[in-house]
This record gives sequence, structure tokens and C-alpha cells, in this order.
Amino acid sequence: MIGAGSARAVMSALKNGKGEEDVENIAYYNGRTGPIEEMMVPMNDRACYFGDGIYDAMFTAKHVPLSLDDHLRRFYRSADKVEIRIPMPFEALRELVLKLCAQVDSPTAMVYVQATRGVGPRGHAYRFAGESASLWAFVRPDVLDPMDRDYRCITAEDTRFLHCDIKTINLLPSVLYTQRAEARGCDEAILHRGERVTECAHSNVHILKNGVFQTAPCDNLILPGITRAHRIAQCREMGIPVLEQPFTVAEMMAADEVFFTSCSALCCRIREIDGVPVGGKDEALIRRIQRAAQDEVDREIEAFARK
Amino acid sequence: MIGAGSARAVMSALKNGKGEEDVENIAYYNGRTGPIEEMMVPMNDRACYFGDGIYDAMFTAKHVPLSLDDHLRRFYRSADKVEIRIPMPFEALRELVLKLCAQVDSPTAMVYVQATRGVGPRGHAYRFAGESASLWAFVRPDVLDPMDRDYRCITAEDTRFLHCDIKTINLLPSVLYTQRAEARGCDEAILHRGERVTECAHSNVHILKNGVFQTAPCDNLILPGITRAHRIAQCREMGIPVLEQPFTVAEMMAADEVFFTSCSALCCRIREIDGVPVGGKDEALIRRIQRAAQDEVDREIEAFARK
Repeated sequence: MIGAGSARAVMSALKNGKGEEDVENIAYYNGRTGPIEEMMVPMNDRACYFGDGIYDAMFTAKHVPLSLDDHLRRFYRSADKVEIRIPMPFEALRELVLKLCAQVDSPTAMVYVQATRGVGPRGHAYRFAGESASLWAFVRPDVLDPMDRDYRCITAEDTRFLHCDIKTINLLPSVLYTQRAEARGCDEAILHRGERVTECAHSNVHILKNGVFQTAPCDNLILPGITRAHRIAQCREMGIPVLEQPFTVAEMMAADEVFFTSCSALCCRIREIDGVPVGGKDEALIRRIQRAAQDEVDREIEAFARK
Repeated sequence: MIGAGSARAVMSALKNGKGEEDVENIAYYNGRTGPIEEMMVPMNDRACYFGDGIYDAMFTAKHVPLSLDDHLRRFYRSADKVEIRIPMPFEALRELVLKLCAQVDSPTAMVYVQATRGVGPRGHAYRFAGESASLWAFVRPDVLDPMDRDYRCITAEDTRFLHCDIKTINLLPSVLYTQRAEARGCDEAILHRGERVTECAHSNVHILKNGVFQTAPCDNLILPGITRAHRIAQCREMGIPVLEQPFTVAEMMAADEVFFTSCSALCCRIREIDGVPVGGKDEALIRRIQRAAQDEVDREIEAFARK
């Protein structure tokens, strides 16, 4: 736990921008900062009644938020799609995120940014919104999902809304899927609409079959994952064919390899789905993709350090 | 605006349970009370990141929450469906709601109750949840939608999730529909999945055709409205045939009358949809239903006063 003294230190460090005094974690809400556990927000923030907001999350290693610009661009795109105006231009938000990251004393961490449609008496319509959106953020210690172990998943019918391309905080179905997976000793829930696999509760899912990387195309049924895009680009560079085409549950169960990606999962190999063994038929290729993913992260951290 | 002095008065009044000192509005969060505009909640409440909660709302006239027990029963049912344990038994919550209502100095008001899956570091799964759900409430002045005017609506494709029977706070689509309706000078958005009409953004929608009251059946595509149930029961009592069967957009446009209901709309007659005149062909019947609705409310208030 961090006391009020530390909170003051954070605020002072934020003010001078030097980040000299490290804290265990830090939260930000509309200009205020403090330890996450102590941060309070108005009950009338539209997050509280409607989940009326969007977010993004990224991973930091050595205080470097990985793919920061990609994540922030997606954050502004999500906001545009639901007519929320993030109350800060791109460069200012970028600087704020870097300042917050600099202050958290952890080799690896998660950065979270959120924008909600501001504060006001509960009412569905938002006639006067836009001027007054709320900006939220936090940075806290976290670790990447390790790539040297096997993952287990469940499947579940995808009953979410038809705006899964927008990273909104309407996440109750994903909460329930994840809980169901963990209750069964699994790591993730793979969702499908009828036979078609869409994505996981909080990551994208892909298969390898006959040397081809296959993944669902970006439409309103999946989130356009940043890590997904990076794996696709890398595979293309390495000469691995990429097929952006939906696959079925049966195709997934019979694939050579199955894996998921997210901001905290560079390339996680799935070896069991609903208790049935899957994949394991093209270890050489999935290890090659995993190594390339790790190399990319290492290069990004090094490049940042040289700046 | 209500200052800190009034907030203290509210808390003291709540403590002695007499409700002697009236306030303009009142909010409640996990045992704390105060003016809604000043109430703060923890950033780590799962409402803020996931919309991980359920709610209910009812209308009060002369400090009487209409159909209070029906609403509270639905509130507990919604909670059960998403495995949230409301941190208070039914009778205690009922008493709390009545105490809050007694203190707000307004002839009519809205009572809102919400339960979220408690406070904790952001994470989809909720392994340890249940013991610590958060209870929210507020009461504020409001008026019923008048029945002596005509209403205008738009239509929109229903892209919500497939859990519309649960009154969750994952309401971003409803926010966007309502805003779109108001931007076009309309009162509500009527949603349809393909040709099938489901419900409105925040009310149920019904038609009259050849003397029959037709409304969508209760499944996962609509909220089982309390006011809807009351209108159905009343129509049956009055000998008006009721058909719980989905109708299409075309059937709605050609109906004798179209109307919507919600906790703040006893029976509101729609006379224009997407700019096209509708209904107006069975005024006698819809006025009869409206009179019965008003009579029921008047009787409930009177019965409460006699207790």
C-alpha cells in the first residue's frame, strides 16, 4: 500500500516531469493522480451507469510502452466511433503516458487508458457531451504471459454485441466468459458465432495449417488486435503465408497449431480446448513465430533506450 | 446545489430513520450518502472498467415507489443471472429505498438502484467476488412522460448483445440509439433485428391491431418490463385480447396504434416513426388503456397512504 505521502510525491514528480520518485503504481483521473487503490471518481461519470467509454491497454518493459503509437491511434479511433472526444491531443496524451510509465518502479507493467463521456446527471442521450469527456489512466506492475508453457481454453457461444471492433468498456460478457474459463482451470475462452470462431474473451485467436497462418478478418466481430497485426506483418516478412479468413471450430480443433495474442500475450500456444488436445503438429513454425515476436520486443526496448 | 451541510443533514436523517429533513436529491454508495453531484466512488469499482453490474429504476409519486416489490424482485433476478450477490437481503433493501424516497422533497421522483461486482484491481475474472458487491442508489426529482401528447420515434437495427433480458449497465448501444433519436427530434428509438421488432432503447414497444394488444414475448432479446407486465395484466382483466408474439416493422407501421411503456412511461402513444405517420386508428382503445394505467397508479399511491 502507498500512503498519502507517496501520492504527493507522485504528483510533485508529475509536475516537474522528472519522474525521480518511483511508486508501486499510479492512477490518473482528469488531472488528479494517486495510488490506484485510493483514487476516487464521481458517481455521475458516465462509466458508472452506462459503461459509456472506451479504453486501450499496453504492456511496458523497462518503462517502454510497447507499440505505444499503435495503441494510442486505436484509442482515438475507438473514441471516434462512439463520438467521444478525448480531452487531450495525441502528443499530449503520449507524453502523459510516458510520464506515468517512468514513475512506476517495476521492470514490466501494464498501462491502461480510458475515456468516458464525462460527468453529468444520468440520462441516455448526451446532447451536450464532447467538451467534457473524462480521461482515466493507470500503470501497475504486470508480466507478459510466458511463451514457454502450454495454454488451455474453453469454447463458448459468442453472445456479445455487434461492435466488437470498438474497444469499449461494455465488457460484462467477457467478464463472464473469463470467469467460466478460470473456473474450469483454463486460461481463456474461445468464442464462436455458430461454427465460426471469432476471437477470445480478451485476445485474438489464430491457427497454423499446412504452413499457413490463418486468422479471422477485421470486421465488427473482432477487435483489430495490435499484437495480431504485428504477428501478421512479421509472418509476411518471414515468408509465411497469411490468410485472413474465418475458420470454424472444427478447423481449429484439427489445426496444426492454435495460439492467441494480446498486448500481454505475444504468441501463446494452446494445447487443449474443452479438455481435448489440440495442435502440437508444427512446433518448428510456432517457435519461429514466438522467437520473432520476442526479438521485436527486445529491439523496440533497445531502440527506445538509444533515443 | 446542495452543500456539505445538507449532506450531513441527510446522513443524520438516514441514521434516525425519520427523514425529517428533506433534500433535493440523495445518492447512496455502500453505506455512504450525500448529494448525487458530490458522491465519489472508487475508480476500482468494477462498474468503471467493465460495466460489471446490474440496476433497476422505478418511479415515485408522493414518495411511493411504484411497483416497488416487482422492481426489487427483478433487480435480484438480474443479479443472479450474472452471479452478483446483492449485499443486502430484500427486506433491508426495501427499507433503504423507502427511507431514501422519504427524504427527497419532490412530488415525483426517480429511484435508481445498482449493484456492481465490488471493488478490486482490474481483471476480467472474479474468483473472489460475491462477498463484496457494491450497492449504489439515488433518488432525484423526475416526472412521468405525459400521456396526453403524441410521441415520435426512429427505427434502428438492434446490434445489442444477446442478454437483453438482464438489466445490466452495459448500455453503450442504448446511449447511441437514444442520442440518434434525440438528434432527429424524436423521443425514442425502436429496435429491430432484421424485420422483427424487439423493443426500444429504454422501453418496451407494443401495437394494437383489430382490438388485440400485441407485444414481443419475453426472451433474451427484450427486457421483461414491469410496466409491460402491468399493461398486459390490465388488458386481460378488461377483456382485451393479448398476443405475446413478435411483430415486424411492416406490421408496426400498419398497426391501429403503436405505444411504448417503461417505468416512467405508463402508456405513450407513438404517432410518427422515421417521419411517417403511424397509428391513430383506435383512439378509443388506447385511451382506455391509458386511463386504466393512470387509475392503477392512483390506487397504489392511495393504498400506500392508508398503511
